[in-house]
This record gives sequence, C-alpha cells and structure tokens, in this order.
Amino acid sequence: MQAVGIVVEYNPFHNGHAYHLEQAKQAAKADIVIAVMSGSFLQRGEPAMVDKWTRTQMALASGVDIVIELPYVYSTASATDFAKGAISLLTAIRCDSFVFGSEDGSVQPFLNTYHLIKQHRDEYDSLVRSSLQTGASFPKSLHYAYEQLTQNHPATYIDLAQPNNILGFHYIEAADRIGSPIQPLTIPRVAAGYHDDLKEGASIASATGIRKELAETGSLEGVKNVLPESSYEYLCNWHEQHTRFASWESFWPLLQFTIIRHSPNELTRYAEVTEGIEHALLKAAKTSDTFKTFMEKIKSKRYTWTRLQRMLTHIYTGFTKEQLHSFDTPTTIRLLGMTAQGQHYLGRHKKEFTLPLVSRVAATEDKMLAIDLHVAEIYNFSVESSGSSHKLPKDYQTPPIRFK
Amino acid sequence: MQAVGIVVEYNPFHNGHAYHLEQAKQAAKADIVIAVMSGSFLQRGEPAMVDKWTRTQMALASGVDIVIELPYVYSTASATDFAKGAISLLTAIRCDSFVFGSEDGSVQPFLNTYHLIKQHRDEYDSLVRSSLQTGASFPKSLHYAYEQLTQNHPATYIDLAQPNNILGFHYIEAADRIGSPIQPLTIPRVAAGYHDDLKEGASIASATGIRKELAETGSLEGVKNVLPESSYEYLCNWHEQHTRFASWESFWPLLQFTIIRHSPNELTRYAEVTEGIEHALLKAAKTSDTFKTFMEKIKSKRYTWTRLQRMLTHIYTGFTKEQLHSFDTPTTIRLLGMTAQGQHYLGRHKKEFTLPLVSRVAATEDKMLAIDLHVAEIYNFSVESSGSSHKLPKDYQTPPIRFK
Repeated sequence: MQAVGIVVEYNPFHNGHAYHLEQAKQAAKADIVIAVMSGSFLQRGEPAMVDKWTRTQMALASGVDIVIELPYVYSTASATDFAKGAISLLTAIRCDSFVFGSEDGSVQPFLNTYHLIKQHRDEYDSLVRSSLQTGASFPKSLHYAYEQLTQNHPATYIDLAQPNNILGFHYIEAADRIGSPIQPLTIPRVAAGYHDDLKEGASIASATGIRKELAETGSLEGVKNVLPESSYEYLCNWHEQHTRFASWESFWPLLQFTIIRHSPNELTRYAEVTEGIEHALLKAAKTSDTFKTFMEKIKSKRYTWTRLQRMLTHIYTGFTKEQLHSFDTPTTIRLLGMTAQGQHYLGRHKKEFTLPLVSRVAATEDKMLAIDLHVAEIYNFSVESSGSSHKLPKDYQTPPIRFK
Repeated sequence: MQAVGIVVEYNPFHNGHAYHLEQAKQAAKADIVIAVMSGSFLQRGEPAMVDKWTRTQMALASGVDIVIELPYVYSTASATDFAKGAISLLTAIRCDSFVFGSEDGSVQPFLNTYHLIKQHRDEYDSLVRSSLQTGASFPKSLHYAYEQLTQNHPATYIDLAQPNNILGFHYIEAADRIGSPIQPLTIPRVAAGYHDDLKEGASIASATGIRKELAETGSLEGVKNVLPESSYEYLCNWHEQHTRFASWESFWPLLQFTIIRHSPNELTRYAEVTEGIEHALLKAAKTSDTFKTFMEKIKSKRYTWTRLQRMLTHIYTGFTKEQLHSFDTPTTIRLLGMTAQGQHYLGRHKKEFTLPLVSRVAATEDKMLAIDLHVAEIYNFSVESSGSSHKLPKDYQTPPIRFK
C-alpha cells in the first residue's frame, strides 16, 4: 500500500485541510494518508483550541487514515527541530512520500535551494557576516545573503520570504539530514493566506482566521461555511461541554500564577527562556489582568511573538533546558487514531516500521512520551478549570480512536 | 519604657487574645506590647485566613502597640526555628520580657525542664535510644526518656505532652541559645482548648474553633460573641470584599495545578519534601477535587497533617531546600504597624535595636524580606483569584499601619 505523510496541527480541521488532503493523495498516488499531528501545544507556542483527541476525530472524519502524535519536544520547537521530528516519524512509519503545502508549489526549486545552501555554506555564511557588519539585522542579513547566493549560482529557487516555503525548506533539510528515503512533494497553498481574516461567502479560510472569528464572536455560526460538517459538530460539542476554546487567554490565570510563583533565577531554567527576560516576565505578570496586556508589555524588537509564546509554553509545562537537550530523535510512534483502512495498513506494514508503534501509553516508560502525558495532564487541567462542565479523557488511559 | 513581647498568629484576633494581651502587660509590668506576628503562611502550614495587614489592624485595634512580621522562613518552620526567629526579633527590638501562654502557667518549671535536658543531654539521648531499641515509636521514646530523666533528677518540671508547654519550652531554649537577655514569663491559658469547638454562650473560643465555625456556616454571626467588635468588623469587611476567607480549600485549584505541573523529581527540591512522598503527592493531586480529599489520600502514620501542610506550603510558594539552608538568623525588623504609643517607643529606642528597622520594604535588598514579599504576592494572587472583587494591597508598596 502506498502511504503519503502530511504534517499538521488541525487547529481546527477546516475545508482547506480537506482540500489539501485530497490533493496530497492524488499527487502522491497514495492509498492512504498518515498525518503526524501536534498534541497539546503548537508550534507558535500556543495551546491547541481543542484537545488532541477531538482533533484526531475531526481528521479521521474527513479523510485522514492514520493520526500519530508529534511529541511536545518537536511540536513546540523551532522550524528545524519541528521538521526533524515530523519527517523522522513519517519515515519511521514507512511513508513513501510526504506532501507539504507551499507558496511555490513545485518541489524542484526547494531541492535547488536546499542544495545551493548546503553546497555553498561557507559563501553563504560569509555573506551573512559581511551584511551583519554593515549594521543590518539578522533576518535582513539572511535575506541579503540568500539573494546574493542565488544570483551567483543562477537556477530556479524558492522565495524564502514566504512562511510555507520556509517550513517546506526545513522538511527537505530534515529528510536529507536523517537520510530518509521518503519522497518530498509539494502542492500550492490555496485561497486564504496564513493570517487572513475570514472572507464572506468563501468556503476556505485559514485556521488563524477561524480562531480569530471564534474569539471575537464567541459563536460557531460564522465559521460554519468553512468547516466540514463533522468538524463543525465536534467543535459545537466541545463548546457545549467546555464553554470556551482553549487559548492563552483562557489559561491566563494559571500561567500568571505559574510565572509569579517563580524567582527570576528559576524562570531561566526553562527551555528557550533567554537570560535577561525573566525580570520583564515577572514584572508584567504581576500587573496584567489578561494575556494580551501581558504580551504587549513584554514584546520587543528582540523577541517575536512566537518566540515569547514558546518560552511561556515551556514555563507553563515546566519543560527545562536540561530536558530539551536530553532528546535527540523520536523514540516511538504514538498512535492517536485510525480508520479501518488505516488499521489495515498498520497490520500489513507494522513489521517494517523503524520505531515501536505505541497504542497503550500507560504501559511504556519512554521519556519523550512521558512528557506528552505530563503536558496533556496540564492541558486538561487548564481546560477543566476554566469554566468546563466536563472532564477530558485522561491521556494515559485513552486508547487510539478507531473511526468507523 | 518597658516593652513586653508576644509571639502571635492572630488567625483571627479574638477575645482570648485580648485577654492574654492584658495579662501579659500586667505580668510584665510593661508600658507597651510588641507582637511578632506570622505573615501570609502560618506554623501549621496554612495560609492565614485574612492577610497580614488586616490582622495587624485587628491587633492594633485591640491593644497591641507594635506589630512586626515573623518572616516566612520562621513562620512556617518547626517549633525550634519558629521560636528562634520570634525570640531573636523580640530581643532585637529590645523587649525587656516576653510572655507566652502555657498549660503550666509558671515559668520556673520551664527553666527547670530546659536546664535538665541541656545538662543531661547524654543521659536523655541514651534513654531515647534504649526505648527506640525496644521498638517504641520516636514520640513515645521521647516521652519515656523525659519521664525517666525527671524521675532521676527530682524537681518541678512541665508536662511536655501539652502543646503550649512545648512551644514555651522552645522559646526558653531559643532565648538561651542566642544569649538573649530577655526575661521569659508565662501566663496560664484560659478557657477554650486549642482545638475545641465553639461553646454556646462563651465569650472566649480558640482560633481553630472560630475558623471551623466559619468554614461550616460561612457566616460571621456565630462567632460575633467571641470577637472584639473591631475584629468582627474587619472580618465582615474582608468577607464582603473577598467573598471567602483564605484557606487551602480556596487555594486548592492553584495548589493542585502547581503540584501537577511538576515532575516527581522537581517536587523534592522544595523545603521539607521528604524523598519518597513525591509520587503520592502527584497521584493524589491528579485525582482530588478538594483539598480535603487530597489530604485524606496522602496522610499516613509517617506524616502528621502539619508536616504535610508545611511541605505543601513550600511547594506552593516555591521555597526550596537550598533557600531554607541559606538562612540562619533574622536580618531585619519589619514593621507592619504601630499605635501612637508604639511610634513613641520606636522613636525613643530605635538606636538601641540590634537589627535595622525596615518600614519601606521596596527600598531594601534583604533576601529574607524578598521571600516575604514574594510569598505575599502569591498569597494575594490566590485570594484575588478565588472569587474576590477587590485587589489586596501590594506588600512592597504598603507602608506600616499607623493606628489612631
């Protein structure tokens, strides 16, 4: 059976994802689609709006055959490590290819760009340095170096200023670095841009646009058109049980307390907390009633919003620098859910997998998995304590979803 | 001016305290009364039911002339260190005497007991050991050794099975160890026992009885008779602004989250968390909706309720073993409030104090004081986030209360 892999967050699963899925399957001529999906916290350093099980349900209801979890260690990491975790897992579960959406839309320019930088690393680095010496910022210098390099070695390259192209670049890089035989494919991203607001009448919107609409109106009516019916129903059900979608705003009282509880020195123990920012974090936490106010107080030219949110994620979950440095590569494949077709694939190919497939997490002592269980515990507690009338399923007790 | 010192928690200030105050002043023939009072967390390992400023107000309204803070490091410590902190501060602020309530009621038997144990340490220790060897428990062996020792050296001794006698013993011990010239005095404790329930018609009840009544009825009516009018009003005002009195039960969601956030290993970093209990703490926290349920799950023969509560206090405030061991003796006298008479005393005797008197804490860099500010921040946050409609005064901004 031909399997194609995709890397997803599904926060939430919307029509654009359904379209991407279909395209991926066609492009790869695949029988089944395997999604490696982030668990409780996402790459932008935010809690997922609904838990991993609900998001797995949405995915399986709309055409994904197998959902496996991208561990916290990777799901909240920078693009390089995020891609490394995801591609390692898709390789381990024996995907023939993986497909990513990109602004560029064809894969050769990605390969060209990757090999250009790989083969001319010294030239690239010295271009970056010389630009930095003129006083340019680091992102600007990277941009300048890339521009120069592509001019020095003419061919078709990707535009590295586009967010999905950057992520695609890192997937290609990861596949090469781990020596994966997996075939990279890309399809053009359609319709809504990454951060666009919802457009009236459109059936495709970005997840960011959907979350923004939900946060502003507090109602699912306005996003009904851009969601598969099943997604809409899962989200309605969540909203009924938990009164709101998870966000830093809803977790703010607990995050605020967590920061305040620490001494400045203790804060710097957590992953990605750069020394020097701890005092600003404490000061702002003591005087902010909302997450938004807090962020406005701590943001600066030096730190992007995403970077700050990732620090906060690690403070919140208690994930230390020491822990971060103790992991190198994924150690298990954690199964979150499957369709009958997916189950068939697992039965048939399980022996070829290069990492153990884990269905019953309570029975393992894997350290990376232990972090995912720990983080899920924190996520669930946060959801349950912000106005929820229902308990969420305990992560360590939940078996993979069998979708019929 | 003659000053008498007392060691208090005033949780809350009640008629028994007013009586004790009067007696102390008479017994010591003192012009003014100085109370060293625990701040946010108390010796039994619990948050104070109302904050330190409200308790200072109650004290000043009912006859105390000066209130100084017993730092967190001592206020949450075992009897030995609690007494050391308190007596050191009363000595530093130049009290001529200190008075404690006891079951015994006269001071000579305390001195006899203290010197007996001090002078016959080896004999005492060997009696303890030989009892332990017969299989008796540690408390039983201490009791046996003391009994034997008093029989071997007949004189009038105190009954060390009485809780207030034990505390008195530690005050005497502390005064001797730090070489304090302060004169110890004791007065008999009256009426209500330490843990007694409220008796109908009585005007004196224990603080424990009062808190229990409040927790059960949720109303101040039932305790009006046993409180000075001023205390009653301060408590009514608190209840109106914050809807409830602070307790582990009201802090439970935050304590629960704090425990859950930690790995077992990280929990053992906190003061008094004995290795081995961390797994039980985590397991119980994950499955308890109330503090009571939680405590019932973790209590065992090995740990007293107080001991467990002290561990939880340190976990909650983030106070580590390393911090605990970095303090030896009080470093400042923190003034919480004074009457005109108290102010007069401070003006007249300030130069004789053996530790700096601190009124504006924001201006100091004292490490022990920094902990008190930190702990007050945590205390305030916890009160404010459990249904309060008012903000509490920030500890580092609050000047000492001048009571008129």
